[in-house]
Amino acid sequence: MDIAILIYDRLTALDAVGPYEVLSRLPGATVTFVAEEPGPKRTENGRLALLADASIAELPSPEVLVVPGGYGQADLMEEGPVHEWLRKAHETSTWTTSVCTGSLILAAAGLLSGVRATSHWLAIDELGRLGAEPVSERVVFDGKIVTASGVSAGIDMALALAARIVGDRVAQAIQLSIEYDPQPPFDAGSPEKAQAEIVELVRSHARFEQVQAATRDGR
Amino acid sequence: MDIAILIYDRLTALDAVGPYEVLSRLPGATVTFVAEEPGPKRTENGRLALLADASIAELPSPEVLVVPGGYGQADLMEEGPVHEWLRKAHETSTWTTSVCTGSLILAAAGLLSGVRATSHWLAIDELGRLGAEPVSERVVFDGKIVTASGVSAGIDMALALAARIVGDRVAQAIQLSIEYDPQPPFDAGSPEKAQAEIVELVRSHARFEQVQAATRDGR
Repeated sequence: MDIAILIYDRLTALDAVGPYEVLSRLPGATVTFVAEEPGPKRTENGRLALLADASIAELPSPEVLVVPGGYGQADLMEEGPVHEWLRKAHETSTWTTSVCTGSLILAAAGLLSGVRATSHWLAIDELGRLGAEPVSERVVFDGKIVTASGVSAGIDMALALAARIVGDRVAQAIQLSIEYDPQPPFDAGSPEKAQAEIVELVRSHARFEQVQAATRDGR
Repeated sequence: MDIAILIYDRLTALDAVGPYEVLSRLPGATVTFVAEEPGPKRTENGRLALLADASIAELPSPEVLVVPGGYGQADLMEEGPVHEWLRKAHETSTWTTSVCTGSLILAAAGLLSGVRATSHWLAIDELGRLGAEPVSERVVFDGKIVTASGVSAGIDMALALAARIVGDRVAQAIQLSIEYDPQPPFDAGSPEKAQAEIVELVRSHARFEQVQAATRDGR
């Protein structure tokens, strides 16, 4: 089973690596990191590069597609080779998936019209404006489209997907292999659970980062 | 604050990227992926490469050290430049940390003698044989040494560490930024929680992989 994870500059690494760590353990799975052009793709802060081993043109019809998010998502909202690839690959994929703001890219490519889908909590309204039916859940299945909320949700998404693909037994074995018995030190992982002050802190920081990024890029 | 994440061939990507995603968001933090030799380091299955931007020699005294695990840990158990670097860096570090079988490397370098520490559940006995005091907990603090259990536990470790470094408020903001509100589809993430049959499945698979790796390497 061919699994393609799309990467690009200014991605969020965990969006891609969470699902990779789960899906690469599926029996018979071959995961390939693809990009419009192969080579290193750096995260938002520039401090980590993941290598894309193949171009999207080399993998036209993976069975599973994974689209991660990150600030670089903003550069993939216009019509172009990535959108064409996504639409074409989606025609024959078994599962088309996204993590975090990756769903905005799927929506911009025209794949989420009227589809129940989720995104990072800061991007859920934007997802609605792009024609999806936004849902504030951690993992959302709608037909063969599976979307996850922010960053770390890709792990939960991939485990739920693994269960659909190979059954509960192997999915549980994968969970145990990566010792995924989460014990976060705080119960602050969603805007409903975090204190209002923390939610506002993250909101204002995200706005600041966006302004910084726009200034840096001369936009 | 300089944070060095040691990478090497046949590492487990999530061991490194989980802590990266949290610690890189600390105000004033600069994360660098380091290796004995800079360049791409591939995961166990060869399907993902992370780039090491610097050699360990270029970062002799980071404030925070992170040592991930993976099958490649077995190649770092002998005395050599990595052990020398770890011992030297540990002299001045504020925090010396590991994820999964990264703790076996710390132990082999002589840093865990009599130290309460943890590792992947499959490696916890080995950790004891190497002189540490093994503890089956998700995150273990002993002085400035912090160890996490398998793979995904690096996220919990990094959040707990973030709280020590900058306080609960910013740690919670980081947790909310990466929307870490885990909802695994199964309660099978530890050997105590998974069914006995699943534990045995993972155990026998790990043995099989080790034999395969040893055969491949001609050991």
